[in-house]
Amino acid sequence: DGGSYDVVSDASSPAARECCAQQGSARHNWEMNYQEAAIYLQEGENNDKFFTHPKNAKALAAYLFAHNHLFYLMELSTALLLLLLSLCEAPAVPMLRLGIFVHATLELFALIVVVFELSMKMRWLGFQTFIRHKRTMVKTCVLLVQFIEAIVVLVRQTSHVRITRALRCIFLVDCRYCGAVRRNLRQIFQSLPPFIDILLLLLFFMVIFAILGFYLFSPNHSDPYFNTLENSLVNLFVLLTTSNFPDVMMPSYARNPWSCVFFIVYLSIELYFIMNLLLAVVFDTFNDIEKRKFKSLLLHKRTAIQHAYRLLVTKQRPSGISFKHFEGLLRFYKPRMCARERYLTFKALNQSNTPLVSLKDFYNFYEVVGLKWKAKRSREHWFDDLPRTAFLIFKGINILVKSRVFQYTMYTVVAVNGIWILVETFMLQGGNFFSRNVPWSYIVFLTIYGVELLLKTTGLGPVEYLSSGWNVFDFSVTLFAFLGLMALAFNMEPFYFIVVLRPLQLLRLFKLKKRYRNVLDTMFELFPRMASLGLTLLIFYYCFAIVGMEFFAGVVYPNCCNTSTVADSYRWVNHTVGNKTVVEEGYYYLNNFDNILNSFVTLFELTVVNDWYIIMEGVTSQTTHWSRLYFMIFYIVTMVVMTIIVAFILDAFVFRMNYTRKNQDSEEDNGIVLEKEISKEEVIGIIELYKRTSAATETAQLQKIVLQMDKYGQMSTVFLGRRSRTKSDLSMKMYEEEIQEWYEEHSRKEESQPPVQEAASAPSSSLKPLSLRQRSQTVI
Amino acid sequence: DGGSYDVVSDASSPAARECCAQQGSARHNWEMNYQEAAIYLQEGENNDKFFTHPKNAKALAAYLFAHNHLFYLMELSTALLLLLLSLCEAPAVPMLRLGIFVHATLELFALIVVVFELSMKMRWLGFQTFIRHKRTMVKTCVLLVQFIEAIVVLVRQTSHVRITRALRCIFLVDCRYCGAVRRNLRQIFQSLPPFIDILLLLLFFMVIFAILGFYLFSPNHSDPYFNTLENSLVNLFVLLTTSNFPDVMMPSYARNPWSCVFFIVYLSIELYFIMNLLLAVVFDTFNDIEKRKFKSLLLHKRTAIQHAYRLLVTKQRPSGISFKHFEGLLRFYKPRMCARERYLTFKALNQSNTPLVSLKDFYNFYEVVGLKWKAKRSREHWFDDLPRTAFLIFKGINILVKSRVFQYTMYTVVAVNGIWILVETFMLQGGNFFSRNVPWSYIVFLTIYGVELLLKTTGLGPVEYLSSGWNVFDFSVTLFAFLGLMALAFNMEPFYFIVVLRPLQLLRLFKLKKRYRNVLDTMFELFPRMASLGLTLLIFYYCFAIVGMEFFAGVVYPNCCNTSTVADSYRWVNHTVGNKTVVEEGYYYLNNFDNILNSFVTLFELTVVNDWYIIMEGVTSQTTHWSRLYFMIFYIVTMVVMTIIVAFILDAFVFRMNYTRKNQDSEEDNGIVLEKEISKEEVIGIIELYKRTSAATETAQLQKIVLQMDKYGQMSTVFLGRRSRTKSDLSMKMYEEEIQEWYEEHSRKEESQPPVQEAASAPSSSLKPLSLRQRSQTVI
Repeated sequence: DGGSYDVVSDASSPAARECCAQQGSARHNWEMNYQEAAIYLQEGENNDKFFTHPKNAKALAAYLFAHNHLFYLMELSTALLLLLLSLCEAPAVPMLRLGIFVHATLELFALIVVVFELSMKMRWLGFQTFIRHKRTMVKTCVLLVQFIEAIVVLVRQTSHVRITRALRCIFLVDCRYCGAVRRNLRQIFQSLPPFIDILLLLLFFMVIFAILGFYLFSPNHSDPYFNTLENSLVNLFVLLTTSNFPDVMMPSYARNPWSCVFFIVYLSIELYFIMNLLLAVVFDTFNDIEKRKFKSLLLHKRTAIQHAYRLLVTKQRPSGISFKHFEGLLRFYKPRMCARERYLTFKALNQSNTPLVSLKDFYNFYEVVGLKWKAKRSREHWFDDLPRTAFLIFKGINILVKSRVFQYTMYTVVAVNGIWILVETFMLQGGNFFSRNVPWSYIVFLTIYGVELLLKTTGLGPVEYLSSGWNVFDFSVTLFAFLGLMALAFNMEPFYFIVVLRPLQLLRLFKLKKRYRNVLDTMFELFPRMASLGLTLLIFYYCFAIVGMEFFAGVVYPNCCNTSTVADSYRWVNHTVGNKTVVEEGYYYLNNFDNILNSFVTLFELTVVNDWYIIMEGVTSQTTHWSRLYFMIFYIVTMVVMTIIVAFILDAFVFRMNYTRKNQDSEEDNGIVLEKEISKEEVIGIIELYKRTSAATETAQLQKIVLQMDKYGQMSTVFLGRRSRTKSDLSMKMYEEEIQEWYEEHSRKEESQPPVQEAASAPSSSLKPLSLRQRSQTVI
Repeated sequence: DGGSYDVVSDASSPAARECCAQQGSARHNWEMNYQEAAIYLQEGENNDKFFTHPKNAKALAAYLFAHNHLFYLMELSTALLLLLLSLCEAPAVPMLRLGIFVHATLELFALIVVVFELSMKMRWLGFQTFIRHKRTMVKTCVLLVQFIEAIVVLVRQTSHVRITRALRCIFLVDCRYCGAVRRNLRQIFQSLPPFIDILLLLLFFMVIFAILGFYLFSPNHSDPYFNTLENSLVNLFVLLTTSNFPDVMMPSYARNPWSCVFFIVYLSIELYFIMNLLLAVVFDTFNDIEKRKFKSLLLHKRTAIQHAYRLLVTKQRPSGISFKHFEGLLRFYKPRMCARERYLTFKALNQSNTPLVSLKDFYNFYEVVGLKWKAKRSREHWFDDLPRTAFLIFKGINILVKSRVFQYTMYTVVAVNGIWILVETFMLQGGNFFSRNVPWSYIVFLTIYGVELLLKTTGLGPVEYLSSGWNVFDFSVTLFAFLGLMALAFNMEPFYFIVVLRPLQLLRLFKLKKRYRNVLDTMFELFPRMASLGLTLLIFYYCFAIVGMEFFAGVVYPNCCNTSTVADSYRWVNHTVGNKTVVEEGYYYLNNFDNILNSFVTLFELTVVNDWYIIMEGVTSQTTHWSRLYFMIFYIVTMVVMTIIVAFILDAFVFRMNYTRKNQDSEEDNGIVLEKEISKEEVIGIIELYKRTSAATETAQLQKIVLQMDKYGQMSTVFLGRRSRTKSDLSMKMYEEEIQEWYEEHSRKEESQPPVQEAASAPSSSLKPLSLRQRSQTVI
């Protein structure tokens, strides 16, 4: 949200001035309260702990400085710069290689920026809180190490083994924008204890079977997999990933067919039972953690609202917040909000008909403040105001595009198009795919889509047309197809790939079935969370890539690894048979750690698991057999992350499907919608209020509403507040009953022990405004 | 349960006699009612639909004939015989090959037995119901086809392509004992619709990417994976199983590093997203089906109880069942139960203190009837009655073995033993594992375990010692170790493998942690269900093995498949380097369909998925490329079954963990326990009752209890009823609230529409005994 940055420009300097001057009118006193309440609400929203709440004027200034998008962007870009440096540091990507002096200087520069950021944070938190904040302390330590190393590199003018570069990730993780990644990491660490328990069970059985396998199969000298206990262990570990099956079984199977029982039992226990058990345990823990997280977030927000409320009620009217004070709060909390929206938010919160918002109503603050308000249109279509003939034409189009016949015709066209593309591709016999003459079928189908697009846009109006995600998808696919046509027609080779995207049109067919709509909707809802999980995985990749590069850069190359069993995969022979050159290529030398991009691809291959032992054995044969540890640990780490991802997808879909089952009546929902009516008198009343505070723009804006009402001769206007449904809304509904219990438990706890927070520790003062200034006087 | 068989010998002949004689006293009338009520209760328990309820005396006789363990065993053995025949039919397992005449005759014999079984079923069900029963009809058709084919084989004296042999599974599935398999199959079929939806999504993306891949990579002539659309599709299908990764990527990756994006995107969408979505959808459906199944079973049992109740109440006392009638019911329902247990069951059901069991109490019938009753011992240990000195010694041992110090000492010993074995194995340098002299460490550890076993048995008493599953495990492992020692000492080579089982001792360490105990307990609880799922998988295997053998028997052999890309894996070359013979062996020719055992192993390898395309390509290169369909369909089928298995494990564990979380207070539970006290007067009262019906053994047994009471001078004895907790009990507790709703809904439905059942369709007669005889008169 764009809130906090504007807070700085609007208010920080006057507030600071006020504090220093140690004197101010009641109005300024209130301004301070508004700001502090807004900060509390922001802390509630962002799940910032209250012990980091700024405690005095200096802290406030630092807080405001460190809480705006410019600062966040600086944080993010320094972190990214540091991470991207590994593209240029040796072993670098050939195209991006930089001199040691250059990249070391860049690094030092970035580190200095981080020092600056940390010092701002220290100023805001105070030394005491700063050293109590674990993540910040870790960051400081890492910073120190990096600093020293960067200077050493600069002085020696040569890179040493810098595994500590893997720790650079912490700068990214600590960014404001990476909150989701931090939450994922926390969730992963919380899921670890049960995971490790089951992992031990897994490893335990592996050891037992390794001993067994060694005794059973080592007498067979043609069996290279079980000739020593170490080999036996390693091969059973690889077998756990199924990656060497059935090869590992073959030598003993060839000698005695019954030896397959050993492998079948091993795989049944380890792969089909314990691995699934692992998923079950992680899934269960994940479920539990999700619920507890939701609970603590909910209670945290509630506490934040209580803190804010205490700062906004007056001694004279202790039962609620008046609009004047509410408006003051919103000026700080959401400066971009216009006067009309502020009033509508106030009205939406106010369930009773009194002029005050009680604490009970105020608890809905976060649900209501996100609504986007719009006047409810009396006209249904965009063409209602057009002349009669035009109206009839457009109305006809409107009815047409909304008809089932039209829709199903389009589905048929898409299906035919799909089959056409398939058959066309099937008939192609290699070579000349992109002939100069554009195929006529392409033009025909594109024309049909174009006409459809035109009809829909005119029939529904561009705004309504583009308000559906599916239509946006249709639109962009058709646009791409058109661009592809252009590329073909004007022979622009680099854009040929667009032509290839044509089959995406087929995705439209999935609108036909409700389950697909559900699945795809859920997919889009999950996307942010999936992206953050992907980013989390990338962070792990980064760490492993750095370590891999430091140890294994350049160890595999064509025709290496001749001593290992996987030499074939690394072969690269160019021999002549007759008068033709035959290239025998194993290609696996491409899976190396020679630079960070290659490392990422190699790590992805290791994640997919198939044939990973070829990479492992190749590297091992060129280094020591301790290298296997790196690969095994990587496997286990990705297993953890992947299991979490699976658990997340499972949880999200099952949750969603349960929700749909519970609310089958409300079939189609368009998010949260609230309706509020405002009468003319009310608007005039607010204008009076604003006039007193001499806010010209707000007054003008409100007067426009009055004029509009006058024009249509209405005495009141109805506004609609809309926002999309979030996971939190769904959870609220799913846990409805439990939430009440949590609230009661929470308030009981609060009553029994006085909260740590100062503002609340003075029960008598909880109803009188407690400004920052008053407290800053006692602190300083 | 041993019930139904005994019903036949005890009662069927008098009942039949009675029916034929068409005359009988009130007592015999009641006997018929008892029997019918018992049948209703059995139907409720076995989830047999009530429309298969025997409707007349002839049907009853057939019903009783077809419902006992001898008949069930006959069913099972004929089914197994038919299935096992495929071991001997061409292509047979070499050792088991039989002449065509022999195995065709055997088959005909088995089929005739099946005909007999079906005719009995027809007699019991009546022709109308018989042809309405789908499974039976399918079985009849299969039987017909098999019959014709068996005769054809016998006449032609040669086997033709008999894919229909795959249908033999239905004889096994239809067995009484395979109810769990039928349930699994039903569950699989019910999960299919959502599964297929998502599968289509998967295949759809596959087609899109195949077209894309073909356009992008076919210009590269060194890339054999995407040169035609068919290859492109097949390779992306294989890539879905990750089985050809990263090889499939390598040729294009070598040319352009950015082509890895195609594969990363494909795998992320298909493997990491849609495949998990598949699991989520199946898991969700599975959950839902489990709950609905539980509900319908519960309501079915309830209806059965209602039917039975109506047959047991009298006109004079319509408010409940007296002990006399209850006893009569139990004589048919559980003939092995002794008089004491019958009375205790009655008392346990009877919640009120009246002499009658009301319908509300009777609803608990199934929960109570499974309890095993034992007199509550007043003495705590088995040695309480021994002389003072012996008592003190045993008491000391008892305290010792129950002490924590003793337990942890044993854990330490086990751990040391484990490390010892590991180190010992690690130090072994090939060859002579089983030296003639038994290693001293083996003897030392075995002695320690022996002493522990002795102490525990004497300290706890053999009965208490063996009542814990963990102790039984300890006992058997120690016994095995001892047998291994014997084998070593007396040099019995074939038993050496027992020595190898020593590391299993280490499993005892898992008792230490609560999570492991939970996991292992759940594992044991799940075992029957897991076994039935395994059997279901085997049935699918059987079908595919038959089809595979008919088409692919003998197609792969050493050095075949030279035209395919996987020729290396089928190589078997014997060449001489210097004066040494080097065998280059690809081994994959071992993965064939040459007989049913080989087919099963091959199918297991296909299930594990890794490198399955080598088997597929080998077979394809020797036959047509349509063979791929067989392998792909097999992959999809195992994917369905495996997903169900994963969903089952997930569901069971999550359910169990939720249950544990909900009932954290009742930490240790030993199943269901009920306590009932019986006074001397009561026993004497029952003796009087039995004396009237002249049941000598029962009277004698009860008199023994009176004597026992007299001996100890007690006026009453307390009995404990125990049984282990089943999944149904857990579900009852989990769905507590919903169950009440179901009941209400169910009874509302029953009121609104008269039930189909005759017995209930006569509301006026619902309180007067409605015997089979009376009805048989009206029916015949």
